[in-house]
Amino acid sequence: MTAIRYELIKTCKQTGARLGIVHTPHGSFETPTFMPVGTQATVKTMAPEDLKAMDSGIILSNTYHLWLRPGNDIIKEAGGLHKFMNWDRAILTDSGGFQVFSLSEFRKIEEEGVHFRNHMNGDKMFLSPEKAMEIQNDLGSDIMMAFDECPPFPATREYMKSSVDRTSRWAERCLNAHARPADQGLFGIIQGGEFEDLRRQSAADLVSLGFPGYAIGGLSVGEPKDVMNRVLEFTTPFMPADKPRYLMGVGSPDSLIDGSIRGVDMFDCVLPTRIARNGTLMTSNGRLVIKGAQNARDFGPIDENCDCYVCKNYSRAYIRHLIKAEETFGIRLTSYHNLYFLMNLMKQVRQAIREDRLGDFREEFFEQYGYNKPNAKNF
Amino acid sequence: MTAIRYELIKTCKQTGARLGIVHTPHGSFETPTFMPVGTQATVKTMAPEDLKAMDSGIILSNTYHLWLRPGNDIIKEAGGLHKFMNWDRAILTDSGGFQVFSLSEFRKIEEEGVHFRNHMNGDKMFLSPEKAMEIQNDLGSDIMMAFDECPPFPATREYMKSSVDRTSRWAERCLNAHARPADQGLFGIIQGGEFEDLRRQSAADLVSLGFPGYAIGGLSVGEPKDVMNRVLEFTTPFMPADKPRYLMGVGSPDSLIDGSIRGVDMFDCVLPTRIARNGTLMTSNGRLVIKGAQNARDFGPIDENCDCYVCKNYSRAYIRHLIKAEETFGIRLTSYHNLYFLMNLMKQVRQAIREDRLGDFREEFFEQYGYNKPNAKNF
Ligand SMILES: [Zn+2]
Ligand SMILES: [Zn+2]
Repeated sequence: MTAIRYELIKTCKQTGARLGIVHTPHGSFETPTFMPVGTQATVKTMAPEDLKAMDSGIILSNTYHLWLRPGNDIIKEAGGLHKFMNWDRAILTDSGGFQVFSLSEFRKIEEEGVHFRNHMNGDKMFLSPEKAMEIQNDLGSDIMMAFDECPPFPATREYMKSSVDRTSRWAERCLNAHARPADQGLFGIIQGGEFEDLRRQSAADLVSLGFPGYAIGGLSVGEPKDVMNRVLEFTTPFMPADKPRYLMGVGSPDSLIDGSIRGVDMFDCVLPTRIARNGTLMTSNGRLVIKGAQNARDFGPIDENCDCYVCKNYSRAYIRHLIKAEETFGIRLTSYHNLYFLMNLMKQVRQAIREDRLGDFREEFFEQYGYNKPNAKNF
Repeated sequence: MTAIRYELIKTCKQTGARLGIVHTPHGSFETPTFMPVGTQATVKTMAPEDLKAMDSGIILSNTYHLWLRPGNDIIKEAGGLHKFMNWDRAILTDSGGFQVFSLSEFRKIEEEGVHFRNHMNGDKMFLSPEKAMEIQNDLGSDIMMAFDECPPFPATREYMKSSVDRTSRWAERCLNAHARPADQGLFGIIQGGEFEDLRRQSAADLVSLGFPGYAIGGLSVGEPKDVMNRVLEFTTPFMPADKPRYLMGVGSPDSLIDGSIRGVDMFDCVLPTRIARNGTLMTSNGRLVIKGAQNARDFGPIDENCDCYVCKNYSRAYIRHLIKAEETFGIRLTSYHNLYFLMNLMKQVRQAIREDRLGDFREEFFEQYGYNKPNAKNF
């Protein structure tokens, strides 16, 4: 019996996108879905009730940050991350690997694991597949991620090949170290960069180990969009149809749609909350920089087509004022709207799959959002 | 017909404290009450719904800040401050005088008004009784404050006498300039420092002009608590019993109780939200510094006697983590609890008045909060 179960509802006849349900020990959620990121045991500025109001069924939290602060021992003692942060729906935690490879200095990769320094105080630390499992078992997330090696971008084929091999060996160690398989599902991460044969090998290695779900790593690291789409196109067919597929670190509207079309079920990204803190908003007509002078006397909502709490109650002029005055209620409102926008986008994607018209929806959305304009922004 | 009407419900037989209701164009609220401060058209970190959940019937906003940013013209165009900030209950605005006297450099006081420089960009500006009325009329607050001279503390009797005289002349100019007396009630501000005869004169001057409410200014500016209490004791008897009495800038639990005992009906202060942003909390057992190491593994609530949203759902350990990690959700939770604590304290004060036992309540509260200990903190 596995903690995580994927139920395929239907496939879009126009695109092949999948409508499904992921069942977890903390409830079920429909896919494709976007997972808000709560790095430090909180989705920045949002209360759990806010996330529930936008029908969020799963959020992501970061193992590396929680390990360092407050410490997985404290969260375990609190009864796990769900209780600690007052979130009773599903949680996915990453392995900490990505942060070790991106945030820390002086990292040294060995077969046993990675030596690095704590990015806050410089302390020497060591993360291994076993340690990543121990921490995530303490956190008690519904979905845990295997500890993988995150190769630099771009990387040579030779480097990538040895990285894929190591990631497979580490994945097996993760499976063996995972102490709570009945409560928590462990996902493997397929690496291999842009190399189709390496993606195939990585997927085959991991599938042979039998995870309840698989992620695609090493994308959204700086490569052009068409490269990401091409890699997804040849990678998802290597992945089992009866398991959820998670594309890590992707959250721009175009990529959420294009990823869904290529058979991805789950996405996460800090994008909506990060740009919100600077006053950049996603609307049905494209991006809006709220600080712009043209919003000073605009008493309409952020997005006239949005029915979120923010758009129903607050004007562009007010939100602009709050952001310029550096009031935290401003970033609470912009974060809420951006997250709602993506949650609502995924709801529309699921509806389009139901109606076998995700390709048409993509064209309509891209046109209205402005993606078809010259020099279009990604978000 | 005046916009503001005070209804005296009863007087505490033990203390003389007043239980009343203030009726405004945006609803009524029971007194004594504490008004959360929303300096920049937002009570820091709080949504209007949060304030309603804690039964806040009136909030305060700052004329000076809104004049400078976003500008009273924009708020007027939005339909007034209530619409601008999505708050449909009562709002009190100050006159801007206190900020001009405390925040600005190069201020020059003349009979006509005060020349000063904008504290944000150094621009030359001028605030007068007429200008303070114009701005507050644009904001559309339910209760406006007269533009008074805020004397330095301490001030000589001579300075204070001329300041009281000027404040009376300015009060009359405010009344004459007030353009919307049917929609907005204008309160006069009694000055006079520690001098009983000057407080008497100031009160007599203002009462002769006939305001719908009166404030006591020039307290909580650095004087000892017993001085404040003595000034209140001799000042409130000079004030009409059928009008609300507002003590400006007071928000520590002891002063709210002691002010109520001396016949004050309304209070405001940034204290609860300001200390919350640093992680300092008011509890039934006194102040709590959440960052303290002893809270790291304390999975109980901030205050076991508090039934607020925060205390029902979050632990000291979690809130400590959020504050240390500089997550804005942390200051949202601490701000909520502190505001709730004061709103709930005033509810208890009102109940004690109803039961003619506010003196007893004071003793019990002071003992439990720790005010009777040597070197007790004020909050
Ligand atoms: Zn919206
Ligand atoms: Zn509380």
